[in-house]
Amino acid sequence: MIAKKARRRSNCPLCFGLDIFGDKWTLLVLRDLVFQRKRHFRELLASDEGIASNILSDRLKRLEAHGLVSRIGDPDDARQIVYRLTEKGIDLVPVLVEIAYWSAKHDPHTGAPKSFVKAFERNRQAYIQDIVSNLKH
Amino acid sequence: MIAKKARRRSNCPLCFGLDIFGDKWTLLVLRDLVFQRKRHFRELLASDEGIASNILSDRLKRLEAHGLVSRIGDPDDARQIVYRLTEKGIDLVPVLVEIAYWSAKHDPHTGAPKSFVKAFERNRQAYIQDIVSNLKH
Repeated sequence: MIAKKARRRSNCPLCFGLDIFGDKWTLLVLRDLVFQRKRHFRELLASDEGIASNILSDRLKRLEAHGLVSRIGDPDDARQIVYRLTEKGIDLVPVLVEIAYWSAKHDPHTGAPKSFVKAFERNRQAYIQDIVSNLKH
Repeated sequence: MIAKKARRRSNCPLCFGLDIFGDKWTLLVLRDLVFQRKRHFRELLASDEGIASNILSDRLKRLEAHGLVSRIGDPDDARQIVYRLTEKGIDLVPVLVEIAYWSAKHDPHTGAPKSFVKAFERNRQAYIQDIVSNLKH
């Protein structure tokens, strides 16, 4: 099943990405796949923000249709499906990390650990590379 | 007039930002302020993506309420209002540039000039710093 693609309105460099992941729920699903290493539907459903089951299902289908996420059988239990970021999805890590850094800087009540801000400011590239390597293994 | 703030659902480091700018229209308005240096409402309205006037007005109010954009009198014509990014808004440049880079990399029909991809890959920090300095002056 392929989620319907949005009509292409321009060749704007940002629009291509925004049409795929430019809504808050999609970005939160990506957050959980990247930072929380969630893999099952039920884990993704159990976020603090209370995503609805039909929205989660829709967003995962869209991410799959655009090749950012793949659905595979759980190696530990063949009856279960798990979701994994593809290379194309992993390429979004810098976008997510920059949003987290902006929020940590400007949110007086941020839940971001101080260690994140420090590690990021000390060596952004190494911080991103660490996350990416973890996701690939 | 202050746009109503979204209810805070978690202290998640990303949510703070996403509640403010995590929708496509807001990100497109930010794009036009950053990359196209648009300043007037009528310029922002005239984008390829055809943003509706009420949506543009709503998003600008929200960005202003959260301190990312300020409304000032046009120095060239006191009857006109112009919109400018604040420091907090300018801090979003890395997020926008990373979205543009992801899109340029993965969109076979990208409108991103090759010079952007090259300049970005050669020296990301210098590329961002150039944009930021331009916005501050």
